[in-house]
Amino acid sequence: MLKPLGDRVVLKAENEEQTVGGIVLAANAKDKPTTATVIAVGPGKVLDNGQVAAMNVKEGDKVLFDKYAGNEVEYNGDKYLVVRESELIAIVD
Amino acid sequence: MLKPLGDRVVLKAENEEQTVGGIVLAANAKDKPTTATVIAVGPGKVLDNGQVAAMNVKEGDKVLFDKYAGNEVEYNGDKYLVVRESELIAIVD
Amino acid sequence: MLKPLGDRVVLKAENEEQTVGGIVLAANAKDKPTTATVIAVGPGKVLDNGQVAAMNVKEGDKVLFDKYAGNEVEYNGDKYLVVRESELIAIVD
Amino acid sequence: MLKPLGDRVVLKAENEEQTVGGIVLAANAKDKPTTATVIAVGPGKVLDNGQVAAMNVKEGDKVLFDKYAGNEVEYNGDKYLVVRESELIAIVD
Amino acid sequence: MLKPLGDRVVLKAENEEQTVGGIVLAANAKDKPTTATVIAVGPGKVLDNGQVAAMNVKEGDKVLFDKYAGNEVEYNGDKYLVVRESELIAIVD
Amino acid sequence: MLKPLGDRVVLKAENEEQTVGGIVLAANAKDKPTTATVIAVGPGKVLDNGQVAAMNVKEGDKVLFDKYAGNEVEYNGDKYLVVRESELIAIVD
Amino acid sequence: MLKPLGDRVVLKAENEEQTVGGIVLAANAKDKPTTATVIAVGPGKVLDNGQVAAMNVKEGDKVLFDKYAGNEVEYNGDKYLVVRESELIAIVD
Repeated sequence: MLKPLGDRVVLKAENEEQTVGGIVLAANAKDKPTTATVIAVGPGKVLDNGQVAAMNVKEGDKVLFDKYAGNEVEYNGDKYLVVRESELIAIVD
Repeated sequence: MLKPLGDRVVLKAENEEQTVGGIVLAANAKDKPTTATVIAVGPGKVLDNGQVAAMNVKEGDKVLFDKYAGNEVEYNGDKYLVVRESELIAIVD
Repeated sequence: MLKPLGDRVVLKAENEEQTVGGIVLAANAKDKPTTATVIAVGPGKVLDNGQVAAMNVKEGDKVLFDKYAGNEVEYNGDKYLVVRESELIAIVD
Repeated sequence: MLKPLGDRVVLKAENEEQTVGGIVLAANAKDKPTTATVIAVGPGKVLDNGQVAAMNVKEGDKVLFDKYAGNEVEYNGDKYLVVRESELIAIVD
Repeated sequence: MLKPLGDRVVLKAENEEQTVGGIVLAANAKDKPTTATVIAVGPGKVLDNGQVAAMNVKEGDKVLFDKYAGNEVEYNGDKYLVVRESELIAIVD
Repeated sequence: MLKPLGDRVVLKAENEEQTVGGIVLAANAKDKPTTATVIAVGPGKVLDNGQVAAMNVKEGDKVLFDKYAGNEVEYNGDKYLVVRESELIAIVD
Repeated sequence: MLKPLGDRVVLKAENEEQTVGGIVLAANAKDKPTTATVIAVGPGKVLDNGQVAAMNVKEGDKVLFDKYAGNEVEYNGDKYLVVRESELIAIVD
């Protein structure tokens, strides 16, 4: 199991050619975001005053993210992305 | 439905060639802003002390924004823009 | 009506070739500031502790600003500039 | 014995060609992270208010990290990496 | 009258070829500072906690400043410079 | 005697070709750290709240540091390095 | 008299070819620091919370500084350097 650190989130990325939950990416968009499902969520970012900021996404959320963000890893034969929560754009509800 | 994260805002952009609410963009402006309607508003930016700063725009507001800002997405056949609130310039009232 | 967001200010720029309130811009100045009248004032910048810093200019003030600053917009046939208060240099009293 | 300073962590890096704990690195990943075992952990980063932020990894943890991060050292014939905790991506549990 | 905003200061610059108050600028200095008299002083910089930092110069002070700093303006036939207080190097007493 | 200011530390650098305390530097390391003995320690860095952060190294500590860091000085015929504590990587115990 | 502003310090630089207080600068040093005597000391840097951080050097201190730092001025026929305290490396006691 992957337990992301800080404000990182483990994502199972969807095929960016497909339509997911009604979202189709604009073909000519300069910065094409992609959709993914949240698999695991870190504890949150440590603020300057020592507090940990609560995360705003949870396991199972469908999210839009900037496809240039994060690190790609492979685990038990599946590919995952680890991104910072600040690189997530929106939850697709 | 798109639920933007942090201080992000979902916009339905107007055609920048048109006049909207009395605003016509200057043709020779170096950084041409465009107008849009706010569709959805994130919870707000987390400050260094852990507080969440209230958002200053709400659904239905007409806003001016920098057209180079944000990520373009398509949802149920419509194009949207997701920008940070700090990239909004003014509310057109 | 334009309601600027954050610490932004809507200005009605004066013709930079003219003399306004006694100010004539130096012809050979590297960064020529220009004069304008304040038309509308945003609520102020949100500080790191969640407070909103009061604005130091008000409607009707004549101000000097860096002419490379801000976004130019046209509203009901008039051109305006939207700049951040920190880009204003001085009030001409 | 190596006692890392601040929020630094001493790692014993695994051979990045091998499979470790089920993780296989994607061959075509732009920024390939690698796996390692945590050997020693610094006291933590000093925050702006003087507090020391607790570390989130401990000796023996298997971690993913960005392979371009940190300083390589050799100690008693073994190679180690010293990286900042913020450069660790996830704990592999 | 020019009322500078924030931590800005209005200066009446001296001829940098002259000797003023005993100061002669080094001819081969890489960053030649120049001398000026303080004409007007802004209210001060707003700190992150909302406080306004008191200004350390007052009208009439002779000051050294970096000659590349600030904006040059002309007012009632005289040239002035508007610089930030942090760009002033020293008071010449 | 050299009394470093702020969070600076005076180091007596070891010959980076030698083995010191069991540490041998990897010959092919991109950023080769070197070992040194701490000779003098500054009072510590002033934090944003006015507190001084305690130093984590003391005279006599053997430390690893980035060899590109700091300023080289000669004192009574010996060469020293003055580096910031944040440029020290680990204590070799 | 020169009264430096903020955390600035007025220095009377020594001839960098000479030996001063036992310090001889390494001839092949990449960033050669030089020695000087402190002539005047500013009130200190204003911190984010409005406090003024006390200065750590006083008139008469012999100090090491980075020779590329600061502004050179001439006063009553003598050359001085005005640098920020953070550009001072160590006190030579």
